[in-house]
Amino acid sequence: MTSRTCLSVILAAGEGTRMKSALPKVLHPIAGLPLVAHVVKAAEAAGATDLALVIGHGADEMRKAAAKFAPGAGTFVQEPRLGTAHAVLAARDAVAKGYDDILVMFGDTPLIDAAALGEARAKLAAGAAVVVIGFRPPSPAGYGRLIEKAGKLVAIREEKDCTDEERKIGFCNAGMMAVSGRHALELLDAVGNANAKGEYYLTDIVEIAGAKGLDVVATEAGFENALGINNRAELAEAEAIWQKRRRQQAMLSGVTLIAPETVYFSHDTELGPDTVVEPNVVFGPGVKIAGGVKIHAFSHIEGATAATGADIGPFARLRPGADLAAKAKVGNFVEVKNARIEAGAKVNHLTYIGDARIGAGANIGAGTITCNYDGYSKFFTDIGEGAFVGSNSSLVAPLKLGNGAYVASGSVITEDVPEDALAFGRARQKTLPGKGKELRARQASAAKK
Amino acid sequence: MTSRTCLSVILAAGEGTRMKSALPKVLHPIAGLPLVAHVVKAAEAAGATDLALVIGHGADEMRKAAAKFAPGAGTFVQEPRLGTAHAVLAARDAVAKGYDDILVMFGDTPLIDAAALGEARAKLAAGAAVVVIGFRPPSPAGYGRLIEKAGKLVAIREEKDCTDEERKIGFCNAGMMAVSGRHALELLDAVGNANAKGEYYLTDIVEIAGAKGLDVVATEAGFENALGINNRAELAEAEAIWQKRRRQQAMLSGVTLIAPETVYFSHDTELGPDTVVEPNVVFGPGVKIAGGVKIHAFSHIEGATAATGADIGPFARLRPGADLAAKAKVGNFVEVKNARIEAGAKVNHLTYIGDARIGAGANIGAGTITCNYDGYSKFFTDIGEGAFVGSNSSLVAPLKLGNGAYVASGSVITEDVPEDALAFGRARQKTLPGKGKELRARQASAAKK
Amino acid sequence: MTSRTCLSVILAAGEGTRMKSALPKVLHPIAGLPLVAHVVKAAEAAGATDLALVIGHGADEMRKAAAKFAPGAGTFVQEPRLGTAHAVLAARDAVAKGYDDILVMFGDTPLIDAAALGEARAKLAAGAAVVVIGFRPPSPAGYGRLIEKAGKLVAIREEKDCTDEERKIGFCNAGMMAVSGRHALELLDAVGNANAKGEYYLTDIVEIAGAKGLDVVATEAGFENALGINNRAELAEAEAIWQKRRRQQAMLSGVTLIAPETVYFSHDTELGPDTVVEPNVVFGPGVKIAGGVKIHAFSHIEGATAATGADIGPFARLRPGADLAAKAKVGNFVEVKNARIEAGAKVNHLTYIGDARIGAGANIGAGTITCNYDGYSKFFTDIGEGAFVGSNSSLVAPLKLGNGAYVASGSVITEDVPEDALAFGRARQKTLPGKGKELRARQASAAKK
Repeated sequence: MTSRTCLSVILAAGEGTRMKSALPKVLHPIAGLPLVAHVVKAAEAAGATDLALVIGHGADEMRKAAAKFAPGAGTFVQEPRLGTAHAVLAARDAVAKGYDDILVMFGDTPLIDAAALGEARAKLAAGAAVVVIGFRPPSPAGYGRLIEKAGKLVAIREEKDCTDEERKIGFCNAGMMAVSGRHALELLDAVGNANAKGEYYLTDIVEIAGAKGLDVVATEAGFENALGINNRAELAEAEAIWQKRRRQQAMLSGVTLIAPETVYFSHDTELGPDTVVEPNVVFGPGVKIAGGVKIHAFSHIEGATAATGADIGPFARLRPGADLAAKAKVGNFVEVKNARIEAGAKVNHLTYIGDARIGAGANIGAGTITCNYDGYSKFFTDIGEGAFVGSNSSLVAPLKLGNGAYVASGSVITEDVPEDALAFGRARQKTLPGKGKELRARQASAAKK
Repeated sequence: MTSRTCLSVILAAGEGTRMKSALPKVLHPIAGLPLVAHVVKAAEAAGATDLALVIGHGADEMRKAAAKFAPGAGTFVQEPRLGTAHAVLAARDAVAKGYDDILVMFGDTPLIDAAALGEARAKLAAGAAVVVIGFRPPSPAGYGRLIEKAGKLVAIREEKDCTDEERKIGFCNAGMMAVSGRHALELLDAVGNANAKGEYYLTDIVEIAGAKGLDVVATEAGFENALGINNRAELAEAEAIWQKRRRQQAMLSGVTLIAPETVYFSHDTELGPDTVVEPNVVFGPGVKIAGGVKIHAFSHIEGATAATGADIGPFARLRPGADLAAKAKVGNFVEVKNARIEAGAKVNHLTYIGDARIGAGANIGAGTITCNYDGYSKFFTDIGEGAFVGSNSSLVAPLKLGNGAYVASGSVITEDVPEDALAFGRARQKTLPGKGKELRARQASAAKK
Repeated sequence: MTSRTCLSVILAAGEGTRMKSALPKVLHPIAGLPLVAHVVKAAEAAGATDLALVIGHGADEMRKAAAKFAPGAGTFVQEPRLGTAHAVLAARDAVAKGYDDILVMFGDTPLIDAAALGEARAKLAAGAAVVVIGFRPPSPAGYGRLIEKAGKLVAIREEKDCTDEERKIGFCNAGMMAVSGRHALELLDAVGNANAKGEYYLTDIVEIAGAKGLDVVATEAGFENALGINNRAELAEAEAIWQKRRRQQAMLSGVTLIAPETVYFSHDTELGPDTVVEPNVVFGPGVKIAGGVKIHAFSHIEGATAATGADIGPFARLRPGADLAAKAKVGNFVEVKNARIEAGAKVNHLTYIGDARIGAGANIGAGTITCNYDGYSKFFTDIGEGAFVGSNSSLVAPLKLGNGAYVASGSVITEDVPEDALAFGRARQKTLPGKGKELRARQASAAKK
């Protein structure tokens, strides 16, 4: 990567009214990560060492969010909002610091990839003062056209101002630019607002730079890179593109997705090779799955880890802190939260394991519940190696079952069970001959009343 | 809307053998509503005040269904079935009543939208005697072509009767028509059956009206409007189109659908803005969700309501009568039926709540079951504000837990618990040292035999 | 079908490194069946009576798998692997046996259908010595072109060797061939390896046969038939095509798939007419569902059967040996394994039924668990006709409940219950007034520490 210094100015001040949301537009997530955080990641991957976030609408919420996804970023408020050049100049203090390259990006264009930005930067390094990122949409109607002459970009023309000839151009303005840090302020300050809306448009610097004899060029990015989000349908479209890319990447790295279109990744999901993911699996953030794991259909996994040979689902819910060791098995209608399931342990059916350790090779019967909450605090359940917990048992925490401990089915266990001990916590059965028939007759007559 | 009176004649007598079904074709549902009921809704939205349903195959079943989706509609049996004009004439008594406009529609063309019908009616109002609804399919092959001359429709030509020139016409007959009520019977009675099948074709009225010097025109509807259903693959295609339209509408109104293609709406689903729906959610009929609700993945919701801030799923099943107040939480592997979950109450895991009220702020532990059924009748469970029900409890209805009542984990509760009382219903634990090991040895030797 | 004898030689020796898998490529499954087993099925459907499987990479694993999906096939090891002609000759002993027709197929081309193979065989029967199966991809770039002259195939030309004119040909080599058994060895033995890679290419027999004056022709197969699998993205693509074909077939035979794109079939799934499958249903192997069954959303069904009127899900898991009689009902968060649910019996919620029989009309309450496992062995639970099992009961097997037996909610049942008897197995409730409030205060102060 180049040794040139680089500032990414990310414009994220807009209101996004078409989202019809109380949440600022750029904080709506894709793959669990805010739109603007995707832009930040692309900027960083393209070598931006510093970030300037231009905010406006929902500034407080934006600052709070930015502290998480871009802790080192400077934030600059644009108020009032008078156009894109005006927005960049809101970050004047950052722009003026003397970076080699300035990347101007948009908080609502989350699919931009680092390669396109890198190419733009390379053209700055080769002497250009302004590099505009263009793209070729299926239909150019409505987009500003990039007017090139002899390899130079001479103007960005709004469609309504295009000649018939220009309107045929398929190469359009994606909005993003790379600007030489040496020229940036001089160009931005020269932008005027003598137009219908009285706004300062960043696109004007193309002609301004040209007039100064500076080198202005365009670079092409893939169509999807330029997708801006203005409503929730476009948000869903971007999510779909992101997911499609991610699924393809997973498959080519050796993960089997039987029905890739039904598997939803989070921005940070990790899956090892020869892991098989059946249809309808949803990953929340913070998941790390080793190779050779089986994830059955209808599983929901978030903040969890699983080692080789683990077997998950169908209908499993792994919540944050679920940690499956090799060959551990979590089956259907089982919820695991903040619990280590050690090697070869089995939690196969209709069980809640919260705040617990299940020792290696232990077997937890169907319907078992760790009673970890008393209404105020959470308590821990520690189950030893090779223990057997009979079905439908209630394990009232804090509780420790020793290695090899055996709990009879249907028990309520409130006291620790030593190693190899057997514990009961259930009433003796009473059987009343003929009374079932009698009861039924009584019920039937009551039901008739 | 126009003040002209309007009758919609809906042809729904056909057998639909390619559905391979015991159910009459037009009663197969899309979004939970029969095909023909979609047609009825479109007719009503286009201002039809009266409906005549022409039935034949499965007439009894049709009448019974119509009593629900079109209670005021007249039903007319066509028997035998001798073509579309013959079918309309089965409703002669209705047609003869002197409506301004007659809309002829088909029970198996459910995606027709009111706008296209409205345009056809507007053309009647402007003086046309017959208005044929046309459409432009991707390929016209197989469809009747609309032959226009100087803005007038002169014929509907079957493909086999077309000249080479006519065969190039892309504008095709969608089947539906608007006919002036003043002329309808006169035109229909003039239709003959001198054709290969000996049937009376509605399309013949175009030329008949033309010959009488009446004004006949076509109006264009979107392609999908004309989709007729003949087999279950086409049924699924129509369902997909309907769902796509509905999802788009939800997103543009401010609902986030992370993966719209995996969310299935019912015909009457209501969702408020800033509600987020994760992947894989299925709505049955009768759902009303406020704004600002979170519906997590793998939820199945039917006949239920939820107020702002409610949190549903993943893996939640809300059945009819589930009513979630603000910030109520229903979590994974939980079924709620005919129950009010009051503000801030939590039913987080592996629970069945049926015929109950859960008071505000109450907490229902994992694995709790309301035992509401005795084999004959259902009984009610009333849980007070701030109550705590320990995990894996059985609440045997009829039962009342007072405000602040506390039920110990693993209890079977059969009697009311007063306010602030503590109730136990479980056996004391017995622990037998070393007996677990002994039992295991016995089991192992038994297993070997 | 022809009476000609036919050997299918299936080449399955390759390594498939782009799968990035420990499993040999052709053993990766589509619809639960290995790729190569799909090829075997197509060969058999096209009338191949004998099979020769040419293996190499992972030979032991291949042999083991082949014993299941093609028990009568001969296996031949190709070692080293020197090209496709060399691979066919690895099966020289089989080829030499004097079959009328030899079909050369590829283990990684699973979507080939029998019709295309049948057409190739028909051309052999009509006198051709070699028939090459061709296809027309959307873009021919990268494929070998089939060069035809006067209806004869004169060469298969690699793209790099094509003239500009030849490069325009859209008819490409799918790899598969039918070769006259009388000429096969003579042609194969004539193939040389004077090429860049020093390999023996099967495609060379086209020109060799032509030079000998034998008849060589091409036959066209649908594009999807030729899809070869080289990585997991292509595997998913083939799975998607297979599923789409299967769903279409189901719908046209009278099964309603509300959202066909979300229903995943196994290679052997059977569904009767007027069965309705809601969105998000996954079928594992061995499922037979009668007509008139309702399968609700989010169901996972494997190795199970269901009779007319059965009602499954939503959120049902049927595992191998689940056998639902007419009008049996298995509801949400219910797992059934190796159990017969007799006519009209209901297992509606949050239940595990394993190794059991549920008698006709019996009702199993929510949260019931059959405790069928003691850590070593599985035991049987037999529940009589019309029995009622109260919610949240534990049924400790081996156990027999007689007809009409009644189990009180929350019971642990360890002993048989005679016909019409009533059984309890739960502790009496104790209620401590004011103690709930006291406990809560204690917990709250503990939580603060």
